[in-house]
Amino acid sequence: MNFNEKMFELGNHGSAIRELFEYGNKRRKIVGDENVFDFSIGNPSIPAPLIVNETIQKLLNEKDSVKLHGYTSAPGDIVVRSKIADYLNKTYNANVDKDRIYLTCGAAASLTISLNALLNPGDEVIVFAPFFPEYRVFIEKAGGKVIVVNEADDLTINFTDLNLKLSDKTKAVIIDSPNNPTGAVLKEDVIIKLSKLLKEKEKEYNHEIYLISDEPYREIIYDDIKYPFVTNYYDDSIICYSFSKSLSLPGERIGYIIVSSNMKDSLSLYKAICGSGRALGFVCAPALFQYLVGETIGHTSNINEYKKNRDYLYNALKDLGYTLVYPDGAFYLFMKALESDAEAFSRRALKYDLLLVPSDSFGVKGYVRLAYCVSYDMIKRSIDAFKKLKEDYDNEK
Amino acid sequence: MNFNEKMFELGNHGSAIRELFEYGNKRRKIVGDENVFDFSIGNPSIPAPLIVNETIQKLLNEKDSVKLHGYTSAPGDIVVRSKIADYLNKTYNANVDKDRIYLTCGAAASLTISLNALLNPGDEVIVFAPFFPEYRVFIEKAGGKVIVVNEADDLTINFTDLNLKLSDKTKAVIIDSPNNPTGAVLKEDVIIKLSKLLKEKEKEYNHEIYLISDEPYREIIYDDIKYPFVTNYYDDSIICYSFSKSLSLPGERIGYIIVSSNMKDSLSLYKAICGSGRALGFVCAPALFQYLVGETIGHTSNINEYKKNRDYLYNALKDLGYTLVYPDGAFYLFMKALESDAEAFSRRALKYDLLLVPSDSFGVKGYVRLAYCVSYDMIKRSIDAFKKLKEDYDNEK
Repeated sequence: MNFNEKMFELGNHGSAIRELFEYGNKRRKIVGDENVFDFSIGNPSIPAPLIVNETIQKLLNEKDSVKLHGYTSAPGDIVVRSKIADYLNKTYNANVDKDRIYLTCGAAASLTISLNALLNPGDEVIVFAPFFPEYRVFIEKAGGKVIVVNEADDLTINFTDLNLKLSDKTKAVIIDSPNNPTGAVLKEDVIIKLSKLLKEKEKEYNHEIYLISDEPYREIIYDDIKYPFVTNYYDDSIICYSFSKSLSLPGERIGYIIVSSNMKDSLSLYKAICGSGRALGFVCAPALFQYLVGETIGHTSNINEYKKNRDYLYNALKDLGYTLVYPDGAFYLFMKALESDAEAFSRRALKYDLLLVPSDSFGVKGYVRLAYCVSYDMIKRSIDAFKKLKEDYDNEK
Repeated sequence: MNFNEKMFELGNHGSAIRELFEYGNKRRKIVGDENVFDFSIGNPSIPAPLIVNETIQKLLNEKDSVKLHGYTSAPGDIVVRSKIADYLNKTYNANVDKDRIYLTCGAAASLTISLNALLNPGDEVIVFAPFFPEYRVFIEKAGGKVIVVNEADDLTINFTDLNLKLSDKTKAVIIDSPNNPTGAVLKEDVIIKLSKLLKEKEKEYNHEIYLISDEPYREIIYDDIKYPFVTNYYDDSIICYSFSKSLSLPGERIGYIIVSSNMKDSLSLYKAICGSGRALGFVCAPALFQYLVGETIGHTSNINEYKKNRDYLYNALKDLGYTLVYPDGAFYLFMKALESDAEAFSRRALKYDLLLVPSDSFGVKGYVRLAYCVSYDMIKRSIDAFKKLKEDYDNEK
């Protein structure tokens, strides 16, 4: 092979999630759609709110074609950025500056652009198990080293281990709230505690430690939880956002990066982000969808549908005797496997056509992830399969 | 600065083209829109064909929201890829395989994804002066070294210098036809000659030399010229395409990569491209615009408008005594500066509110680029300014 072997490996071995999803597609053809219980993939099942298509129609009718489909400035249309800043400042009592927002092709792009702007070869980036597996891919491609903090008892932040893992080489820390795969939201007290620790370490090491907050599920929170907006708590913070989940537009690739305006080097880092987006080939975020999110800011899909799914699935599985992490948000349920080997458990679940992602690729052992962004009917039909799976294990005792 | 300095530099110093464009925006406010003759930027001035907005309407009306706006597979929707392959095979008598097409967020993404898939640190990539300045940014970010082949007399390919610059370290060669900034099309005999030389060198060095053909202007050719489709001539070729210019959709970010199916390692390189797209954070190309280009394949904006511009501008400037490269395609005119220092010439042109990009950033000296994707009226109004600029120099003699 005369080209880049690492890139080949990444293309050759898809993620465990994708592989399970493809298996499900094959099974459907054999046993029928209604008999496969596919909890593998985080693809929103709720349609975009009606205002999305209505607004696209309006933009097509009212805006001149050359302007509508033309290049915007590289960081994104300034009117759209103003609307996003105004909305966030009103909603979270925040201090977001339109000139520190950089519109992107979604959360993955937000992360890669930020990481490539931040990292120099050998820099360390801390992630908390369980974490979204692509973090590893993005960090390593940007030249960084992944440092995994072991899972906490409640699967949020293990501060004892974090303290051990922070070092002079730590350039950034990534948090993800609501979390994929657990659905847990980092509450205000946790963000305060984290900020305090990072500030101490910044002083100790005499350099910045950037807090990257990956927030594609920010609007998908079910109960009455106050979402702590990180730039209000920690100056050296960067927010990576996507409209994929909140507006059910995952294919359209639209999101943003916010550089905290309280950061000392705020403008310089923002420029590095512009440079990074340029060098990675992003040019600008898709123009029509920039205008769309500007016009529809504050709207979301009908999140209550996911809540209905969560409540039903969580309670039904609990009643069957499964051990679960209670999800505050996102559309994932993290469930303890019935044996220590999550991959073996996931394989046995396939006997009942239950597609559950083993937790190993998320950096923890002994769990499976259920993506419940699926139809309510499928969830109801799946309970009998979960019952059989449980009995299968019970009968072995 | 505690982050990546190179990315900061790229964000801090925009391109010369962008800077001139911003200057034009300021001048317009002072002397009025109609008195600024802005030839700085390659932003299509012709609207997208009507079928574009009609098709978007149709997709919104007919396609289920979850499917329309949902993730596609990472390389792009398979039906869309089939349509693109069929169209290209019919049009160019080519051998494009739908499973070797990877849909991207435009030509810049096509290039960065391809380069990151190909390059290992220290690999050399050859470009031909004059070349699109962002090539340098993309190649260096992907870990490669830029090797510039000096300009030929006709500003296409200088084979003598190419022969000297090819080496055991050459991983790839980038061509760009129709060319930005000259508008020249590489004719079939040139592609045959280039392929022959590269094949010889592949044998000599006993490894592949990939030919990357950057073709965003492929459909913008005015005269009766046969476009040589590179995969028909050279097995180790990769095509980087964008619909930005042909459909006047530069802001929407939609294009593709084709890996030649005649390549020995075709599937492996395709997988490396999938891995590279993943690691750079692209996920998938914007879904709505994937379906759009599938439905409208073969359509273009009204290219005749650019031809009208070319003919008028070329002839008028020639009549004034300027020396010009005759452009076969794209929407750029490359004109000899009236002094050896192109930047000084460009500055003097500003006296007459003529915005012309000096050729230095394209890797050659003594020329300016005129982007004539502007209104016909502006071109007509500008001729008097070009006349005064010429007289200004003539009076010095």
